[in-house]
Amino acid sequence: MRIFNFSAGPAVLPEPVLRQAASEMLDWHGSGMSVMEMSHRGKEFISIAEKAEADLRRLLAIPASYKVLFLQGGAIGENAIVPMNLLAGRSVADFVNTGEWSKKTIKEAKKYCTVNIAASSEDAHFTYVPARETWKLSGDAAYVHVCTNETIGGVEYHWTPDTGDVPLVADMSSHILSRVIDVSKFGVIYGGAQKNMGPAGLTLVVVRDDLLDRALPITPSAFHWKEQAAADSMLNTPPTYALYIAGLVFEWLHAQGGLAAIEQNNIAKAKLLYDYLDATEFYRNPVRKQDRSRMNVPFKLHDESLDDAFLKGAKERGMVQLKGHRSVGGMRASIYNAMPIEGVQALVDYLRDFERRHG
Amino acid sequence: MRIFNFSAGPAVLPEPVLRQAASEMLDWHGSGMSVMEMSHRGKEFISIAEKAEADLRRLLAIPASYKVLFLQGGAIGENAIVPMNLLAGRSVADFVNTGEWSKKTIKEAKKYCTVNIAASSEDAHFTYVPARETWKLSGDAAYVHVCTNETIGGVEYHWTPDTGDVPLVADMSSHILSRVIDVSKFGVIYGGAQKNMGPAGLTLVVVRDDLLDRALPITPSAFHWKEQAAADSMLNTPPTYALYIAGLVFEWLHAQGGLAAIEQNNIAKAKLLYDYLDATEFYRNPVRKQDRSRMNVPFKLHDESLDDAFLKGAKERGMVQLKGHRSVGGMRASIYNAMPIEGVQALVDYLRDFERRHG
Repeated sequence: MRIFNFSAGPAVLPEPVLRQAASEMLDWHGSGMSVMEMSHRGKEFISIAEKAEADLRRLLAIPASYKVLFLQGGAIGENAIVPMNLLAGRSVADFVNTGEWSKKTIKEAKKYCTVNIAASSEDAHFTYVPARETWKLSGDAAYVHVCTNETIGGVEYHWTPDTGDVPLVADMSSHILSRVIDVSKFGVIYGGAQKNMGPAGLTLVVVRDDLLDRALPITPSAFHWKEQAAADSMLNTPPTYALYIAGLVFEWLHAQGGLAAIEQNNIAKAKLLYDYLDATEFYRNPVRKQDRSRMNVPFKLHDESLDDAFLKGAKERGMVQLKGHRSVGGMRASIYNAMPIEGVQALVDYLRDFERRHG
Repeated sequence: MRIFNFSAGPAVLPEPVLRQAASEMLDWHGSGMSVMEMSHRGKEFISIAEKAEADLRRLLAIPASYKVLFLQGGAIGENAIVPMNLLAGRSVADFVNTGEWSKKTIKEAKKYCTVNIAASSEDAHFTYVPARETWKLSGDAAYVHVCTNETIGGVEYHWTPDTGDVPLVADMSSHILSRVIDVSKFGVIYGGAQKNMGPAGLTLVVVRDDLLDRALPITPSAFHWKEQAAADSMLNTPPTYALYIAGLVFEWLHAQGGLAAIEQNNIAKAKLLYDYLDATEFYRNPVRKQDRSRMNVPFKLHDESLDDAFLKGAKERGMVQLKGHRSVGGMRASIYNAMPIEGVQALVDYLRDFERRHG
């Protein structure tokens, strides 16, 4: 029996994707091979990689002036790889600090440049996104970095900052493909695949062509955007199976109607959950309403001594991975694209039921 | 129908591993989740990761004084990550150049240190391993690097160099787990998984504890051995599904009798193929006999105009990926652990048949 899996990542995948992967495991399209066994330079895998890129470009409406790279190392890897690739001739980068993932990014960037914190919501325990008017940009920065969805704090940008001529770099790991975005407003978009795209081990980088010439000499070839762009992400062996699964997820997203349709689903799912949390004193989400994440919904029980009973009861009903991140405690429901509204409804029913029994 | 896949990597996997992966795709051991969907910090995946490490340690008899890391970036990534992790306080590293993979390693290391070429077989088109007596080590090197199996040239170390107190670092990507080795003679062993261990996207690093304190400040956290060792390779999200498949491969290797038994198979398979190549003028392998790889067997037809016909005929018999690497041309049969001797026999039968028709 399949369960409702609220994990923050690696996370639930669409069941049709898993069914297809299982059916093709020993023999992909009559090739006599598993996708895992294919040479990345063979015509079979090249066709898989090309279709994945084309489907992703169509989903996000990525302009032709941007390269799509499928790399490795995850967002934490990319936290070092971004400055390596953008700092030639510059020594400062600007960061907006909205939570745990911003902090990791900043810590890593300090190895390569002077970090300017342009804005921070640490004063209010990372419960909001600082308004653009309050940002103090340094002026000579190589780039401005934002984390557009904080997976742990549950804070999301519902607007795109204007940073003028300074390239805007966004870690979108935990909400990419959940909504329509305007790629042309960003210099670089990156993210680990393991929330909304596919299995862990695949990292997406979307980079504007004019930013490919800014790498430091210490940039490893495997993570050098320009070299990888010239090699169609095959300078080294890509994580082929993870890319194949991501490609199946992209196909599934198109079959759902693309990102405009998925975004409506996600709005409805988030509304269902937040409306219930807001209607009671028993549970509480701390994030300012206009900055709440549609993907990651942290909440606390008014009485923390009930946490274990809550999690145990959820598991008995087939709902798992609801425990909040160890750094903040409480609960967290991650409701990515592949979480059906039935899963969110089951959670809300359980929230109501648990409150009735313990309130 | 499954075929015989002689790809150099990603490469053939044991069929029982693929069957198990397919059967567990939607629901691993009654968890209601695919392994791809599991939080890397959940008890289900932790149990998978711990068993994989334990099985690998037992296969290679890895001493307790070594850490086992499961990372990302492949061998080309590690070519930069190795110097970053070992160069603190030193500025020179020694390299033995035995082919294309050694050359890639050297190119990458030059970004971080002075490279001393201690020995090279480039004078003879990389057809042998330079004897230890001929190596000119620099004396103050941070480490000595060897590629113990050159995937493209088909050259393998059948002995382990003694480098005294200077740590020996080995890229074993394309022959690890194919033979018994004495881990204690190495400071660091690394390799991409996609030849003999599992899917692409997983990188193994085995590192002696006393070498964990030598990282440069520019080392990214995701690739920082000491930080990853302290976090059980979970400082960032590991490539969970690839590690799960590698774990199934490790189980399969134990079921075959471990590395001593696998090595005997590999000796028999290699002998079958080399004996035939040596018995005819029609085909030719250029490597010195005592340095020939058991895993990657490059060969040329005496008449290169027959190459296309050879590959076409092989494919009709269900044998694929026999084309040699573009840098050297000709043919290459990669006969990793998961290639059954029946596959090698089918290839030899075809070699004989093709020669009869075209010789």
